[in-house]
Amino acid sequence: MSVKDFVQQRRDALIAMRRDFHMYPEPAWLEYRSAAKVADTLISLGYDVALGADVLDLESRMGLPSDEVMKAAMDRAIEEGANLELVEKMGYGKTAIVATMKFGGEGPVVAFRVDMDSNDVIEAKDDNHVPAKGGFRSCHDKAMHACGHDAHMTMGLGLAEYLAAHKDEFKGTIKLIFQPAEEGVRGAKAMAEAGVVDDVDLMFGMHIGFNENLSNCFACSDHGFLATTKLDAVFHGYSAHAGGSPEKAQNAMLAGCTAVLNLQAIARHSQGASRMNVGVFESGTGRNVTPDVAVLKLETRGATTEINDYMIERSKTIIKGAAEMHDCTFEITKQGETPAGRISDDLAHEVQAIVEPLGIFKEVPFDYSGGGSEDCAYFLNRVIERGGRATYMVVGSAIKAPHHNPLFDIDEEDMLNGIVALGTIATHYLK
Amino acid sequence: MSVKDFVQQRRDALIAMRRDFHMYPEPAWLEYRSAAKVADTLISLGYDVALGADVLDLESRMGLPSDEVMKAAMDRAIEEGANLELVEKMGYGKTAIVATMKFGGEGPVVAFRVDMDSNDVIEAKDDNHVPAKGGFRSCHDKAMHACGHDAHMTMGLGLAEYLAAHKDEFKGTIKLIFQPAEEGVRGAKAMAEAGVVDDVDLMFGMHIGFNENLSNCFACSDHGFLATTKLDAVFHGYSAHAGGSPEKAQNAMLAGCTAVLNLQAIARHSQGASRMNVGVFESGTGRNVTPDVAVLKLETRGATTEINDYMIERSKTIIKGAAEMHDCTFEITKQGETPAGRISDDLAHEVQAIVEPLGIFKEVPFDYSGGGSEDCAYFLNRVIERGGRATYMVVGSAIKAPHHNPLFDIDEEDMLNGIVALGTIATHYLK
Amino acid sequence: MSVKDFVQQRRDALIAMRRDFHMYPEPAWLEYRSAAKVADTLISLGYDVALGADVLDLESRMGLPSDEVMKAAMDRAIEEGANLELVEKMGYGKTAIVATMKFGGEGPVVAFRVDMDSNDVIEAKDDNHVPAKGGFRSCHDKAMHACGHDAHMTMGLGLAEYLAAHKDEFKGTIKLIFQPAEEGVRGAKAMAEAGVVDDVDLMFGMHIGFNENLSNCFACSDHGFLATTKLDAVFHGYSAHAGGSPEKAQNAMLAGCTAVLNLQAIARHSQGASRMNVGVFESGTGRNVTPDVAVLKLETRGATTEINDYMIERSKTIIKGAAEMHDCTFEITKQGETPAGRISDDLAHEVQAIVEPLGIFKEVPFDYSGGGSEDCAYFLNRVIERGGRATYMVVGSAIKAPHHNPLFDIDEEDMLNGIVALGTIATHYLK
Amino acid sequence: MSVKDFVQQRRDALIAMRRDFHMYPEPAWLEYRSAAKVADTLISLGYDVALGADVLDLESRMGLPSDEVMKAAMDRAIEEGANLELVEKMGYGKTAIVATMKFGGEGPVVAFRVDMDSNDVIEAKDDNHVPAKGGFRSCHDKAMHACGHDAHMTMGLGLAEYLAAHKDEFKGTIKLIFQPAEEGVRGAKAMAEAGVVDDVDLMFGMHIGFNENLSNCFACSDHGFLATTKLDAVFHGYSAHAGGSPEKAQNAMLAGCTAVLNLQAIARHSQGASRMNVGVFESGTGRNVTPDVAVLKLETRGATTEINDYMIERSKTIIKGAAEMHDCTFEITKQGETPAGRISDDLAHEVQAIVEPLGIFKEVPFDYSGGGSEDCAYFLNRVIERGGRATYMVVGSAIKAPHHNPLFDIDEEDMLNGIVALGTIATHYLK
Repeated sequence: MSVKDFVQQRRDALIAMRRDFHMYPEPAWLEYRSAAKVADTLISLGYDVALGADVLDLESRMGLPSDEVMKAAMDRAIEEGANLELVEKMGYGKTAIVATMKFGGEGPVVAFRVDMDSNDVIEAKDDNHVPAKGGFRSCHDKAMHACGHDAHMTMGLGLAEYLAAHKDEFKGTIKLIFQPAEEGVRGAKAMAEAGVVDDVDLMFGMHIGFNENLSNCFACSDHGFLATTKLDAVFHGYSAHAGGSPEKAQNAMLAGCTAVLNLQAIARHSQGASRMNVGVFESGTGRNVTPDVAVLKLETRGATTEINDYMIERSKTIIKGAAEMHDCTFEITKQGETPAGRISDDLAHEVQAIVEPLGIFKEVPFDYSGGGSEDCAYFLNRVIERGGRATYMVVGSAIKAPHHNPLFDIDEEDMLNGIVALGTIATHYLK
Repeated sequence: MSVKDFVQQRRDALIAMRRDFHMYPEPAWLEYRSAAKVADTLISLGYDVALGADVLDLESRMGLPSDEVMKAAMDRAIEEGANLELVEKMGYGKTAIVATMKFGGEGPVVAFRVDMDSNDVIEAKDDNHVPAKGGFRSCHDKAMHACGHDAHMTMGLGLAEYLAAHKDEFKGTIKLIFQPAEEGVRGAKAMAEAGVVDDVDLMFGMHIGFNENLSNCFACSDHGFLATTKLDAVFHGYSAHAGGSPEKAQNAMLAGCTAVLNLQAIARHSQGASRMNVGVFESGTGRNVTPDVAVLKLETRGATTEINDYMIERSKTIIKGAAEMHDCTFEITKQGETPAGRISDDLAHEVQAIVEPLGIFKEVPFDYSGGGSEDCAYFLNRVIERGGRATYMVVGSAIKAPHHNPLFDIDEEDMLNGIVALGTIATHYLK
Repeated sequence: MSVKDFVQQRRDALIAMRRDFHMYPEPAWLEYRSAAKVADTLISLGYDVALGADVLDLESRMGLPSDEVMKAAMDRAIEEGANLELVEKMGYGKTAIVATMKFGGEGPVVAFRVDMDSNDVIEAKDDNHVPAKGGFRSCHDKAMHACGHDAHMTMGLGLAEYLAAHKDEFKGTIKLIFQPAEEGVRGAKAMAEAGVVDDVDLMFGMHIGFNENLSNCFACSDHGFLATTKLDAVFHGYSAHAGGSPEKAQNAMLAGCTAVLNLQAIARHSQGASRMNVGVFESGTGRNVTPDVAVLKLETRGATTEINDYMIERSKTIIKGAAEMHDCTFEITKQGETPAGRISDDLAHEVQAIVEPLGIFKEVPFDYSGGGSEDCAYFLNRVIERGGRATYMVVGSAIKAPHHNPLFDIDEEDMLNGIVALGTIATHYLK
Repeated sequence: MSVKDFVQQRRDALIAMRRDFHMYPEPAWLEYRSAAKVADTLISLGYDVALGADVLDLESRMGLPSDEVMKAAMDRAIEEGANLELVEKMGYGKTAIVATMKFGGEGPVVAFRVDMDSNDVIEAKDDNHVPAKGGFRSCHDKAMHACGHDAHMTMGLGLAEYLAAHKDEFKGTIKLIFQPAEEGVRGAKAMAEAGVVDDVDLMFGMHIGFNENLSNCFACSDHGFLATTKLDAVFHGYSAHAGGSPEKAQNAMLAGCTAVLNLQAIARHSQGASRMNVGVFESGTGRNVTPDVAVLKLETRGATTEINDYMIERSKTIIKGAAEMHDCTFEITKQGETPAGRISDDLAHEVQAIVEPLGIFKEVPFDYSGGGSEDCAYFLNRVIERGGRATYMVVGSAIKAPHHNPLFDIDEEDMLNGIVALGTIATHYLK
């Protein structure tokens, strides 16, 4: 059966799977229900499934939540039907999976990478928001799949199912990497450092969505990856009664606001794209108390490591100056980081030649440089450094609102087409 | 028995009572355990106790928490031993008490006012913080008696006990007003509008703490009350992926930070003291999402209503401009308000003549103008407008840190002396 | 002849004198034409006139302009008719005059102080601005008598003329102090340090204008003087092509803007009035060059020296933090300073008793606390410290716009009434 | 004689010419001495020289100085030896020159464009700054050739001299365009609109300097041109005495500072490079006067017109919001503008083939995308739109500091090599 026919046949099941993932979004390092479900399915399909500490270099993990938060997420996952044994096996901060299937003859090791975590976004309740209308809106407070990872997991499992069903036709090895904590670029480094792609010959990363202009298109590479660093900055001042002795205060909120404005005002770099976002700012305990603490969660990005480093250096200087200005102390901690990603252009051209003839995409451009950051870069770069080839593909979709917006939604047809493309690519190299 | 001897005799019980109140702090409109305990005690002492809707003009309440929050506070109060019947009688947002005792002969109606709510402050755990060391640190998350209202309740009940024990010696009427929601100046207006002081001839407000220089002093008036208004401002923008399409965002955090800096920078008024405090700022949902909401909780103050109005007008203009600058919408809602308070100078001079001879205070100044705001002003002004007399007294105490600071603590000796002063004043006018 | 009759008789000449001073405003330390004219007149009236280095402690002068600027001002003054000899005698930065007349018998030394400098304001050309309409608008670029010192000089000379004309009726000594550089509080200290008031028994400072509510009133004291300090802050960064290499810049303008916002946002002091003004900000050389320099001219004020010190300390910290934030260097230099002024209340009460019966003022309040700063404080404080008495009086006037505004204008009738008051006060003590 | 030999022979004269231009820098629209000298030379070489209103569409000029400033510049130019007749012929705001020489046979119209204006930068006096050490530092206050236009004029005249000297060897037409006011992109539009390139077949723009990495390199195109718009924003508030009535002020400086921070903080655009620079900020008249005016000179840039438009729209919104926030009025006026420039890739490849064999450059890259803006784009785009071909070339030079920096200096050897390249290119097409 062709991949296309397979997807057509499993259409309803795949859509249902995506909607189930969508309804139970789990933020970074808390993907217990999702991961357990993924692992369960892969095991039942006959894959060798390694998970948890076996596929993570624990020291390389970044931006872990507290034990309390992880405990609560595990409990909730179990309540929501996750396989208890698998959840416990993963344990605290180890929601990573690598599924391998070795086929009969000699052949390359082909790897696909999928991410599983959700965003800290409150999903829209609007009637014209399909998940709300369709009854599969997030049932988790302050969490939403607003970046399409629900579709990614579905695509990975769809691919897994197709390959397993036709395993006799293939040679070489398929490796499916389900990664935690892509949001905040916190998870890939630990899997890469654990060596999970060290035997890989052909590495494929991918993402759905991005841009309306890309609807029903399949881009074979993304040269626009930005290096990024995630920082938390905390200012500590001194609180006083705002009416009775305001002059005794060391106002951490003013330090924070001054920092935010100046961070966003860091000069653009002439050598390429840069980004700054202070995504979260929390300060103060009460209206009539001068604020003694301010917490900023920010990220820098750069088209190159040098540009990202420039953003980080300037950020640190600004945060320091803002703190001193208000007699505050401060600390800065790194919560995530990824370099810019490398692409094997020849592989991308091959992918173009494989996907275009399928006739299911309006266009199959060689490249779409989206301007995002992806710790898939750790996998891509590692494979290329060790002599393999790698690319990162984009399944364009007519998204309803920008990524990370409460109204974000993909078109499920694009997800299905994406599975056809992935299956066809895998088939090409494993045949 | 003299008040002094009474306090000496009840010393341990009074200190224990204050520590119990301290350990169970309850924020504005949530004082269920405190109020139930106060009412219970007053009933057992023989007072006529009116509470809830009977002593509140419901429309005049400001800054009420949500029903969910109130429900949780009621449940907690009951768990922590509050009288179920009293808690239910008060119900949502009605934690107000007026206790009256009419004595034998003709005489004036003398009223004292006490406040009961706590602050949104996380109490210090330092070993040199007496409540931490002494085992009566707040057991409630994010709540702390950091403004001495625990001592106020104790003083009010100590006074009540003394007067009840000697009721045969008095004439006229004593009225004890236990007010919710002084923090944020949200509660007094509703009690004043309900008419609870309309028959009062002599009205006394008071506060403990304030300033180290005032330690072991008793000030007979406070002409430094500031009019104040409490506002919430919310900015609404549009969120986008911070890497992929930052230009599509309408950044509510930038609007908020710009507002904060410019609010604090409102020009000082030449005609008297003014204050500005943005006490709380919360913005953003995730690090890599541009922030689409920013919430500011702020307060203005002024030595006169005109100055406070100036601060409000400037604030509104700034918030509007900041919103427009970032293509955001906004709304401003009033959460509390009080005018500046009036004082009957002759009454304050009488108080000085009554308290000074006690010999228990280092100094008994006529006035201490502290620069705070107090919705006790509603009671003071209403009594004076209707022909009565009123003053607001300060029991100075060697506080360890400014009011509303996590290390705030009063000296319990000052509280005890305060009860002696209050009892002596009451005795003077009710004799 | 009574002072009132004298003023009535000299009415036209006095108004013409004020308009001449108004038309030729000279900023601080550049009052060559004004001072020469004052000295000329006083000499011709028979006063002993000391000037220049004889009445100045040169080291104590603050905020002097450059030699070039002073040279240009001297040249202009001579062109505009100033006495060449007197201008040269004063020389660079020494435009100070003390005129003394010793009368026949024993009596006190009575001193009046007048200031002579103008403001850095471009005078309005509006038709409803009296000086513009009347043809005596400033003929000097960027200079304007927008604080009434033109009227002060006229009042001082009117008083001088009256006393000289009636010298046989007086005893004791009159001392008329014409001070340079009151704006920016730069001149009085040097005269006080030179000892010019060390023999003074009764010291009178005064000012015209202030507040519409004070129109046609004469206030006998001003307890509202604010201590003040004048600072220049300069930020030095690094300039680069704004299009080609913006990331190489160290942006001094951003440091300056950040400083300005945070300076104005310094928390109000609970113990009394404070002020902050950044009056001048200049940064950048060209539109497409990143700015490498920013200059701020600012002033702090406080009801007490402690409050002013608080403002200075906070300012320095903010400027330092803002510089560091943008990798800039900075320097701060003091350009002027004055303490808060002391008043002899008994003298002010005497003045009230002297002036009230004149019947020329609507009201003669004991005090008007204006909230300004005045280096007359150096004279007042020095006289009081040495056992004399001193006060500072306000001649209220229906000013058309706030002091220092391009539309500022006094009512000349108030000036004339002011001369009557000064003459009557002098007569009282010298009779 | 080869161009190389010609340049070698005229080496000293060319260097002297550049140093003379360097010493007398003239800002945009004030290039009277420079232009007169250029025209004089071209006339003496036998060119048909059109200038002033003949080569300018007067309505299309942008950012003209005041008549007073132009008058002063004309007077100065004449004092400094400019041809009186030519200066007068150019008159106010018309310092543009087009020199044409028609050669014998049929051939293309080949045009080169040179700019003449200087920057508003104070040239460094450092000993290691060659012009200072060599005695040809700018003798004009606040003006400096900090962008190499002195070298450009020299290159244009060197080319002119070579071509004139060998005119019998050429066919077709040479057109030399000397443009005023490139800084601020204010001059080219008016020349292009006047039709001066409407008959041009091959259009060459060029610039010296840029980047150390480009030293001794010759880049044959620049695809990195940014569209740009130059805006002035003026805020009008209300001034008051900073001590006496600060609350009456409408503080234009605060509006300006708030605008600057938020302008620099405009979100980076995901679709390509953007720039923001507030290059000049001037506010306030005196230290103790609240500032009633603030002037900002700023520029936006974008890799595309859309991105530049985004920057303009955001800028206008921010300026409006900042004004409203402080109750100020404002106006925004456009002072200059240019689109992004188009390049004929085939022409650039031809140039590469012509220049590389000269062997005088370390490298001859096809492209250097510098990130600057250039109103040469008006010429390039117009020629291409009308069917001609155009490119913009970069003569790399080991500059000592970034463009527009007080220490900027080119290497004169690079200028000489540049003349060789230009001459060789011209020869190629005119042969």
